[in-house]
Order: sequence, then structure tokens, then C-alpha cells
Amino acid sequence: VTRAADLPAPPVQALAWRGDAATGALHVLDQTLLPGEELTLVRTRAADVVADIKRLAIRGAPLLGVAGAYAVVLAAREAHAAGGAGGARMQAQVREIADARPTAVNLAGAVETVLSAAKPHAGDSARFLAALFAAAEALEARERAATEAIARHGALLLAGRTRLLTHCNAGALVTPGLGTALAPIYALHHRGVALHVWVDETRPLLQGMRLTAYELGKAGVPYAVVGEGAAFGLMRRGEVDAAIVGADRICANGDVVNKVGTYGVALGCRHHDIPFYVAAPRSTFDPRTATGDDVPIEQRRGDSGVYVRPGTLAPGAPTAEPAFDVTPAALVTAYITEDGVCDAAGLSQGHSL
Amino acid sequence: VTRAADLPAPPVQALAWRGDAATGALHVLDQTLLPGEELTLVRTRAADVVADIKRLAIRGAPLLGVAGAYAVVLAAREAHAAGGAGGARMQAQVREIADARPTAVNLAGAVETVLSAAKPHAGDSARFLAALFAAAEALEARERAATEAIARHGALLLAGRTRLLTHCNAGALVTPGLGTALAPIYALHHRGVALHVWVDETRPLLQGMRLTAYELGKAGVPYAVVGEGAAFGLMRRGEVDAAIVGADRICANGDVVNKVGTYGVALGCRHHDIPFYVAAPRSTFDPRTATGDDVPIEQRRGDSGVYVRPGTLAPGAPTAEPAFDVTPAALVTAYITEDGVCDAAGLSQGHSL
Repeated sequence: VTRAADLPAPPVQALAWRGDAATGALHVLDQTLLPGEELTLVRTRAADVVADIKRLAIRGAPLLGVAGAYAVVLAAREAHAAGGAGGARMQAQVREIADARPTAVNLAGAVETVLSAAKPHAGDSARFLAALFAAAEALEARERAATEAIARHGALLLAGRTRLLTHCNAGALVTPGLGTALAPIYALHHRGVALHVWVDETRPLLQGMRLTAYELGKAGVPYAVVGEGAAFGLMRRGEVDAAIVGADRICANGDVVNKVGTYGVALGCRHHDIPFYVAAPRSTFDPRTATGDDVPIEQRRGDSGVYVRPGTLAPGAPTAEPAFDVTPAALVTAYITEDGVCDAAGLSQGHSL
Repeated sequence: VTRAADLPAPPVQALAWRGDAATGALHVLDQTLLPGEELTLVRTRAADVVADIKRLAIRGAPLLGVAGAYAVVLAAREAHAAGGAGGARMQAQVREIADARPTAVNLAGAVETVLSAAKPHAGDSARFLAALFAAAEALEARERAATEAIARHGALLLAGRTRLLTHCNAGALVTPGLGTALAPIYALHHRGVALHVWVDETRPLLQGMRLTAYELGKAGVPYAVVGEGAAFGLMRRGEVDAAIVGADRICANGDVVNKVGTYGVALGCRHHDIPFYVAAPRSTFDPRTATGDDVPIEQRRGDSGVYVRPGTLAPGAPTAEPAFDVTPAALVTAYITEDGVCDAAGLSQGHSL
């Protein structure tokens, strides 16, 4: 990969296919173990990738798309090896891949994209596999390029705003490149701009504390982890110049479905007249979903206790654990995509879709 | 203690003096170990109580006052035993007690109250001790009575609002009675009103998840623990009828200094037109501090990592850890004290002070 001088290399690589279509494997950095342990899993079976997605070892909308594309390659390879009995099994596996997580449209979208590209070769399983692999590689390259475009557009937009708040993790770990929300931050840091990033720790799964802190630290970007309740006090004291987050899905009207807590950040920004930016590739936009209220919110059970010390959450204590929330388009100052920057009115004019 | 039939017994007792002034001891439920372990510490030295306050085994504004009063009794007893050398030592201990935590005025206020009451007997160390003890018992009884009055006033105010959000822990564990924010909830539950309490888990020290869940569970009040970022989505979906919180200090203009994250709850309530109530005894009001911005916010180091699983917060990861935040009076719908209910305008007319 050649890289323009204005952008740094990503601080971490979450997924990588190593080898060719026939014998290669998907290398997966297990994000559930970070930052305490850096373990790379070598996956040669689609079912293992599906399990990695379900248990959040692979996470983040754009990365789910890339993982899904390569999982289809693995499923096709298994079907090819199984001979005549492979077709039905492949179809079942493709459904499982597309449905492994419901919120990000990137996943089902990527599966659809690579299958469509390979469809003309459906009669020849070796060619079909090769076509799927080429399509998966192309999808990965497009997503990487999108992060670089987001980095540049976002850096222009942020110019002069140096104390930035982010929520959850929307960085290199969720894309094959520089990330979404963190991409402009990496670009500005690479150019020598002195930044300070407030990292919302992001309960319950602590993606900010665990993952954003991990990759900002690797990149050398100054940051501090804050409890999400502390962010409002920072805003009140004038210590936040802008908030920038990623998205799991952006609906036709511009409503943003993103990690639970995002909506609170947006409300705080509105109250304090702080810009609230959403950075996401076009693959995260879903013109087929009208509004955020049309997206069923994944409810989890037991996430509250995953990263807390034993004895902290009483056994059987009732919890409510929505994984995402909806930020209405009216609270979004601007969307940053690979095509540029626009607001909700611009979205409705099809500007960036 | 006789109790009116309209109020339940507190679900838990955080502090209790057992015995007389000369030989008794302060029994302290160690709140750092809850809910996993219920350990009662028996304290006969003032220095141990100061240490319990500093390490948050004893916490919450009204309870800090009660603990401070009994700690002065212990200090006087030690001074009495030390004979002639005791006076200077007692003075030093009193300063340490009053300064053990800076935010709640209850602590320094209680120390002042019991010392003033005993002052006429300063020439006779046995009488002085007896007078201090009587004053500490009286202060405890007043604080208990205040929680009962808050329970009744708050229950009237909340009437019909049954889905309640609270932040941190402002219950039986922070008072010698029913609590502050939770007192009206206990009163309503005792009368058979079907309630549901959303318990903000309250990072970093998880007082909601650990302590509010613990005491609501003991009392049989239905609740669910939620990440504080999830509360905004609950508000947006109409699932919160009112928020009710306690306070560490309420300034002359009505600004509320309370556990970090409270301000965000208040902002969310304002945006969604949900009442935001603050329940606190008069001992928490500080007419000598003009506004919340005049209160230095306690900054902690390392709290972020206390209740998370090892490996979750990378060693040396920078954190910002304000213990409290300021909610401007303009966001408070009403204050609930033992004297009744009023808004910020009522406060400024001296209504409840």
C-alpha cells in the first residue's frame, strides 16, 4: 500500500487476509482482550469468523463489512471442498454471516456486494471463489480509501478545534485504515497539530477506555480517558471544542444509530453550542431505513458485568443494556464521509448518499 | 426509635454507635466492599474514622456529618485518657476530621456543631465528653428525622410519577435514616405504589450499581441498573417520569455540587421536559458559598481503574477524574428538604434555608 505523505500509517491493523484465496486465512486481532493482551487469531472457517463477530472480537461497522466479505470467501472455499453438497451449506453460512449482527448495514451490505460480483461465475466453484476473493479485496481497499478521504475532509472541518471529545471506538480498529472519527485526528496529529482527545470510556464494554486509548496511545496522540458523566462538566467549563463520533448506521433522514451514550454527547454539545460531528463511510448509510426509530436496538444481557471487578454487580441484579441509541439528525452539525462534508439538509438532497 | 406507620424502616444501617460515650464504639459498614461483602468495622479511634472517610468506606454528605460528630467524641475520649497532653492532640484530630473530605459542608458543619454544644463544659473533660456525645446523638437524630420529612415531602411531589431515574447513591447508606433521593421512593413503595427505578451505575466508583442497587434490592423496590449513557435514550423514549438525586453541597444560589454525571442527567431532563429534583437536608446547604463555581472540585487519580477488571485500563493510561460536577440552579425543578419543597427562586428568598 502506497500512502500519501499527508497521512500516517494506521496505528494498528485489526484484520488482515494473509495468503491467496485457496490457502490463505483471515488474521483477527481479538478486540475483547485489548489492551491487556494482543492476540491474533488465524481463521480458516467462516463459522469462526461469525463467532468472532458475535462475541465482539471483530466489531465496528466498516470492519464488520470487511470481515463479512472474507467470511463469504471462507464459506465458498469450504463449499468448494465439500463438492456437490456444498451449495446448500454455503447458502446457510452466507445467511449466518449476514445476520451475525443486526445493527450495522455494512455487514449484510458487504455480503451482498461480494456475492453480486461473483454471481456470473456461480457455475464454476473455483472461479466463483476467485471472484469472491477479488471482490472482498476490492471492498477492503475501498473502505481503506474511504478512511483516508474522511481523514482529509475531517481535518479541514476540524481546523482550529484541538480539544476533541470522542465516544466509543471509531478508529483504526473498526476499519482497514485510519478509522472514521479518529481518522481526522490522526491526520492532524501527523501534521504536527497539538491535539488533546477526551476519550469517553463508554460503558458497559469500555470501548473508549480499552480500545480508543490503546490506539491513540500507539499513535502518540495526547488523550485522557473520562467517565462519560464527566464529559458534560468538561463542556460546561469550555474544555471541549468539538465532539466527533462514528456510526453503526445512518438512516435516510440522517438519524444516527451509534453506541449507547452517543445521544447524550450530542445533547451536551447542543446545550453548550459545541459542534457534533459524525464520521462514517457511505457503506454505513442506509437509505432503506427511514429514521432511527425504525432500527430495533440490540439489547444485551450481562454486558454490565463483563468488565467490572467480580462482586461489583450483585448476582441477579436487574440491568437494562441497550447496545445503541439514536441521535436525531437535528443534533448533528455535520456528517463527514469519503465524499465530503454535509449536514442533514444536504443528506436529504442526496448530497453524500 | 418509634416510626410512623407511613414510613418503612431503612433497608440498611451504614453507621451505628453502640454503647455509651466512655466505652462504646462506632460500627461502620464498609461501603467499599458492597455488594459483594457486608463487613462491619468497629472503630474506637478517631484516626480510623478519618481513614474510613478518606477511603470512602463512609461516604455521602449527611453520613459524613454523623461520622464526623462521633469521630470528635472518639477524639475527646482519647484526649481524656491522655490526660494533660490531650488538649493539643484533640485540636489536631478535630482539624483532621473536619478536613477529611472537602466537598460536603456537612462534615465541617457537624464538627462545629458538636464542639459548640460542648464548649461550656470544656473545663471538665468527663463532662465535655458527655456533652459531645449527647450532641452527636442529637445530630444523628436530627438527620434521621430530616430523611423522614424528605420522604414525606418528596412522596407528595412525585405523586403519579412512577418511573424514576437516580444517579449515584443517595439512600439509606448516606444517612442515619431513609436517605435523601431514595427516601421518597421508599415511602411510596411502602404505601404500595408500583415504582420502577432506573439506577445510573455511576462511573467511576459505581455507587449506583454497587450501593443503590444493593439497598433498593433489600427494600424490594423494582429497579434496573443502566449505564449512564443509556439514560438519555430512556428519556427520549418517554421511559423516565422524573429524576431525583442527592447533593454533596448546595450553594447559596442553588447550584448543586453532586457526583460527577449529575449535570448530564439534569441536561437530559431539561431537553426532554422531565422534572429534575434534588433532595437534601438543610445541613447540605452552604449559604457561605455563592455559586457552584466557587467549589473546588475534588480530582481523583486511579478511581477509573478501581472497579474495572485488571487489563481493562492500560497501565499509565492518562485519565481525568473529577469526583463531582456542578448543576446550575436553573436546571433544578425543585429542592426537597426537611422543611418542604421549593425552587431556586424560593431558595433565594430564604425559603428553605
